[in-house]
Amino acid sequence: MISTPYPWPWHGSLDPRRLAILAVTCPSPPGGPSAAAAGEVAGQVAGAVRKAGGLVVRVRVRPPLRPSAGLAAAAPFGDPPAVEDGGDAADLEARAAGWDGFHGCPLDELLRAAGRDLLLLSGCCLELGVHSTMRSANDRGYECLLLSDACAVADASLGRAALSMIEMSGGIFGAVGSSTALLRELS
Amino acid sequence: MISTPYPWPWHGSLDPRRLAILAVTCPSPPGGPSAAAAGEVAGQVAGAVRKAGGLVVRVRVRPPLRPSAGLAAAAPFGDPPAVEDGGDAADLEARAAGWDGFHGCPLDELLRAAGRDLLLLSGCCLELGVHSTMRSANDRGYECLLLSDACAVADASLGRAALSMIEMSGGIFGAVGSSTALLRELS
Amino acid sequence: MISTPYPWPWHGSLDPRRLAILAVTCPSPPGGPSAAAAGEVAGQVAGAVRKAGGLVVRVRVRPPLRPSAGLAAAAPFGDPPAVEDGGDAADLEARAAGWDGFHGCPLDELLRAAGRDLLLLSGCCLELGVHSTMRSANDRGYECLLLSDACAVADASLGRAALSMIEMSGGIFGAVGSSTALLRELS
Amino acid sequence: MISTPYPWPWHGSLDPRRLAILAVTCPSPPGGPSAAAAGEVAGQVAGAVRKAGGLVVRVRVRPPLRPSAGLAAAAPFGDPPAVEDGGDAADLEARAAGWDGFHGCPLDELLRAAGRDLLLLSGCCLELGVHSTMRSANDRGYECLLLSDACAVADASLGRAALSMIEMSGGIFGAVGSSTALLRELS
Repeated sequence: MISTPYPWPWHGSLDPRRLAILAVTCPSPPGGPSAAAAGEVAGQVAGAVRKAGGLVVRVRVRPPLRPSAGLAAAAPFGDPPAVEDGGDAADLEARAAGWDGFHGCPLDELLRAAGRDLLLLSGCCLELGVHSTMRSANDRGYECLLLSDACAVADASLGRAALSMIEMSGGIFGAVGSSTALLRELS
Repeated sequence: MISTPYPWPWHGSLDPRRLAILAVTCPSPPGGPSAAAAGEVAGQVAGAVRKAGGLVVRVRVRPPLRPSAGLAAAAPFGDPPAVEDGGDAADLEARAAGWDGFHGCPLDELLRAAGRDLLLLSGCCLELGVHSTMRSANDRGYECLLLSDACAVADASLGRAALSMIEMSGGIFGAVGSSTALLRELS
Repeated sequence: MISTPYPWPWHGSLDPRRLAILAVTCPSPPGGPSAAAAGEVAGQVAGAVRKAGGLVVRVRVRPPLRPSAGLAAAAPFGDPPAVEDGGDAADLEARAAGWDGFHGCPLDELLRAAGRDLLLLSGCCLELGVHSTMRSANDRGYECLLLSDACAVADASLGRAALSMIEMSGGIFGAVGSSTALLRELS
Repeated sequence: MISTPYPWPWHGSLDPRRLAILAVTCPSPPGGPSAAAAGEVAGQVAGAVRKAGGLVVRVRVRPPLRPSAGLAAAAPFGDPPAVEDGGDAADLEARAAGWDGFHGCPLDELLRAAGRDLLLLSGCCLELGVHSTMRSANDRGYECLLLSDACAVADASLGRAALSMIEMSGGIFGAVGSSTALLRELS
């Protein structure tokens, strides 16, 4: 599909059976109309990915546990992860122990067992948790595409810089594309 | 304290503020009077560890996700991890994505944030999940003691062999001790 | 192929392009005629695996770094890992930071990039480093076969117990087979 | 010490025995006078850190292994990691299997065994490998300070954005400071 700095995926074939979309969420999501718009786009893409045979994974990121914080800080781990079943909800959910969605949770195991190595990145915040998760996914051998209009930013100019970082050196962390281009490809 | 093949912990000081007990549980725990006795001992030790200032961590192990099993096999991850608050329950809980209690979950992060590097191993099954968890803990730099009378075995002779493996080469995976000796040390 | 407690691999197809043999080595390998015989068998199998299109990976395991040992204990990491090129040598080498050959090294990354998810286990010591590596591989989703006659034991009765542990519950950590049966399958 | 957005380290005490500086290097370091100046500053800081009792760790990052690249891409792992011994060289070296200096190598194990939980970040490139390594360190519970004048950038405006990302939300990935301020603190 059309994406920068190279047509995604790298090897040219977008097989939906190898596809998953990570819907990243953070504890204090940004508000405002642009964040709401990104959330709406992310939901549409998730629906299209599922319909095409792809997997939808909710990835909850959070501040890391800090030694000084002690046990109380572990409390968020008490929230139930869930395998949701319907509507626009995620197929699977992973709760990370840091800003990187792969850290301290079974996200890598879930994707591997499901045979998914093509990852779409959406959610919030683009330059924080989404970026950490994409950097980690790329290091783990996943082929990644960040959907720029399906991500909410904490700061608009930092969000633009985060996209540029991905595109450096021929796509050092993967590629950047639009939901419109992806939806065209999946339909 | 008195343990084999060396007095535990290695450096000689059993500081309860650095202590945690891992109560390992598996999906199909063994039954029978000896397993019940081990469970009762494990509960007593957990209470004494908590009273002395140690941390009690429930560690749920399980079969790994297999590619052929697909999404359905991920369902157990939907069970809620919990920070329990009272009675004989655990202070924290970690749900692993395999037989090693550190795999695909935040157990390492929880112990690190809580400043616990002295680990007691209890639960079931000694030669399966408990052994995998102890081997992994030792590789990660934790100083480990397996409480032989607080562990249930799947097979009695394999359980004895598992204890001998720990004791090889001067304590290759840590040390083995009895709950009686530990309780004396903590009181 | 013929193996216990189930015909390996689980899904029935032994595709050499998905196959790798891990040749585990430890700092103080056991001596004597039975260890020498196991080493010879392991070398023959590695040659046959390579000829059939499989990958040969040398995996060096070692005692974990301990806090009290400080920097000096890190010295073994100074030994050069190597991509060897010929004869009976390994195709790739990974140096672990513990008894589990996957711990603190790129073994998982190497196998994933090479597309190998069917693993043969050989080397030493069966009940120590080989067992830790097989338990970890199984948790990571690899389908594993331990070649009992290609592994050296530290203690004969513990080696037998280690084989029985693998075979529990229908093959809790994979399967156990002989080099003869494997060589027949590959030829 | 004076740093933004909070005085580093978080808990107020800069104990050199808990301190390590990560000197990150990448396969294609940027050239030019500003990169050279950053390298010179990084070397001075490393010397001062060592003199004060801190640890100097060379961290080599690289592009991740990709499935399509196959075995040939693994060749860089053949380069020898080294425990260097003198002059301005590093005390320890870790070779990562990706842009995150903790990925697929024993960096976490080395730091833990050496009792170092206060990390200084230097090297190249600030917005690429250094940022991935700092994000990962922060998730793992390390308290991090990026030395802005000891890091070379691939792109000046992206480098500035990378610093701003660290400073968001009260220091989401740690703090940012100058070598001058650190040297004053260590002397």
